[in-house]
Amino acid sequence: MSLLSQPPSNEVLQSLIWENDALSLLDQRLLPEETVYLHLTTTQEVWEAIRELKVRGAPAIGIAAAYGVVLGLTGFAGDLAAWQSEVRRHADYLATSRPTAVNLFWALDRLKARAETLGSSSLSPTEATDALLQEAKQIHAEDELTNRKIGEHALTLFKDGMGVLTHCNAGGLATAKYGTALAPFYLALEQGIQLKVFADETRPVLQGARLTAFELQRAGVDVTLICDNMAGHVMSKGWIQAVIVGTDRVAANGDVANKIGTYSVAVLAKAHNIPFYVACPLSTIDLSTPTGADIPIEERHPDEVAFGFGKRTAPEGVAVYNPAFDITPSELVTAIITEKGIVNAPYDETLRRLFES
Amino acid sequence: MSLLSQPPSNEVLQSLIWENDALSLLDQRLLPEETVYLHLTTTQEVWEAIRELKVRGAPAIGIAAAYGVVLGLTGFAGDLAAWQSEVRRHADYLATSRPTAVNLFWALDRLKARAETLGSSSLSPTEATDALLQEAKQIHAEDELTNRKIGEHALTLFKDGMGVLTHCNAGGLATAKYGTALAPFYLALEQGIQLKVFADETRPVLQGARLTAFELQRAGVDVTLICDNMAGHVMSKGWIQAVIVGTDRVAANGDVANKIGTYSVAVLAKAHNIPFYVACPLSTIDLSTPTGADIPIEERHPDEVAFGFGKRTAPEGVAVYNPAFDITPSELVTAIITEKGIVNAPYDETLRRLFES
Repeated sequence: MSLLSQPPSNEVLQSLIWENDALSLLDQRLLPEETVYLHLTTTQEVWEAIRELKVRGAPAIGIAAAYGVVLGLTGFAGDLAAWQSEVRRHADYLATSRPTAVNLFWALDRLKARAETLGSSSLSPTEATDALLQEAKQIHAEDELTNRKIGEHALTLFKDGMGVLTHCNAGGLATAKYGTALAPFYLALEQGIQLKVFADETRPVLQGARLTAFELQRAGVDVTLICDNMAGHVMSKGWIQAVIVGTDRVAANGDVANKIGTYSVAVLAKAHNIPFYVACPLSTIDLSTPTGADIPIEERHPDEVAFGFGKRTAPEGVAVYNPAFDITPSELVTAIITEKGIVNAPYDETLRRLFES
Repeated sequence: MSLLSQPPSNEVLQSLIWENDALSLLDQRLLPEETVYLHLTTTQEVWEAIRELKVRGAPAIGIAAAYGVVLGLTGFAGDLAAWQSEVRRHADYLATSRPTAVNLFWALDRLKARAETLGSSSLSPTEATDALLQEAKQIHAEDELTNRKIGEHALTLFKDGMGVLTHCNAGGLATAKYGTALAPFYLALEQGIQLKVFADETRPVLQGARLTAFELQRAGVDVTLICDNMAGHVMSKGWIQAVIVGTDRVAANGDVANKIGTYSVAVLAKAHNIPFYVACPLSTIDLSTPTGADIPIEERHPDEVAFGFGKRTAPEGVAVYNPAFDITPSELVTAIITEKGIVNAPYDETLRRLFES
């Protein structure tokens, strides 16, 4: 792994770039202070990048993992059956990097399915690897198109002058481009629709402060940063007309797993009669997960809370509870916005129908 | 001003100590990493200590300000009329240090009233200063007794095995000893009652992480630190049976000003049918403030949010909204716990009656 530092430009920062048989990955832990691309050439480097939040955001994790499988095939020598089992091995390994975001498993399953088809073809292993790389690139390209469609649908819910709160980062840095929850803000800007965005800083890892505020400010969106605990106060002042967030997994009943704190925002939105929207691609909706209670919630290291800024912020040895996600029950979700349109409750029916059409 | 670093002991840390004609003040910005006492000898040093949050917590601010007035009289040369006007001048100056906590104004008014009595006595200015110092010491001593009573009343609301959430720091560091909202935890420990305390870290200044977790851990209380945005999630897991917080000012109608984020916690508590308690001395209740809308809310510097840990955590120049307090409307307040007992709604009647009995 080597480091490439690139000067910022006015273009949307790409979180993932495939070039020269390697994955260039924007190290999101260093933003906003440094814009550093990591040059990843092995499956293990991708695993670690996902694990250590160098890349984060459900769609971006899925894309990175897809490329990570391909990287594992570099220099492969063996027959097509061995090739196929090698794909499975790398995919299964990458699936252990983080437990909550379903796009990770979705992308890896898609690569495994493609490898199965390729495995019964007459291609050489090298040709099969090329074809698998095309599949990874396809996932990457589709994500950008998907996000644009999500943004277009979401924007129909917003009006000029509205205040919109978001939590964590479901923006261009979390995806191929545009983002999911942030996509309507980019499209509003293109169309001259004024929205006033409030970004929760999103402790402990501060994706809202470091990433959402960063990418929206860079793009010219009107964004104001607040601490997570200010959301209720800002709502009570009448400054927020809608909340929109991304998600790491939507269960079949419409329960939503997303960054810790999302549930609190949803409860606060309901108490203030503010609609609470969730934006995601279909790949984030997992009909095989019945309810939110079936979604594993990752717990992370106490030091993210107690020692998060290169400085101790809590006493040595104090007990810390640090769940990375929480579950927002479907009854708090006003609508789910996908590339195929907007759905409302009853989600057990409307979500299933999205996959049928 | 000089620095005295004292080794930690097992005793409750005193936030304020009057000794050798000066105010030794524990610099709370440096906790938990360093235990440093500032040696304050002028009114201006006390003003700055309040302004810069070296001392914080409504009762502690009041006590510090009272001593601050006395410090302004060191070396005073003049007659008793001039002395009295000097007291007024220093009190008025100290009143500009922070706008929200009413104990500050309460303590300064008490000193001005005492000075008025002393001004019409036959004492020399030096004797009058001694008498004024006694008044400041009296405020300090009364606070400790008051807190113990608040703790005893509060403890009647808790049962062995309960989980209790608190926000910010209304503990021994915010007061003379015991604290207000944390007093029942210290008394529970003395009486062998097991409570499981959850402390919100309380962004941006992290009083929960740096102070509440610190002083409770040091005392041996079972405390778990969480980020502010985890409160809803922890409630949804059934781990919290009560919330208790301090306050900087209670309006005549029972609206409560407290550290930013308190309102969100109150809304979340209501949504989970968890009682929300506010603990404070009578000196925090201001019948001359009709409602929460009449309480000035201090806005602080954006860098507390964007650059809070010696490290930039948000992009340069991003807009930040940083209110230091919020208002919790009385309908979300289950009970207010004072040294004179526990009162419930209708607060416009029950609070007034506290001052009559």
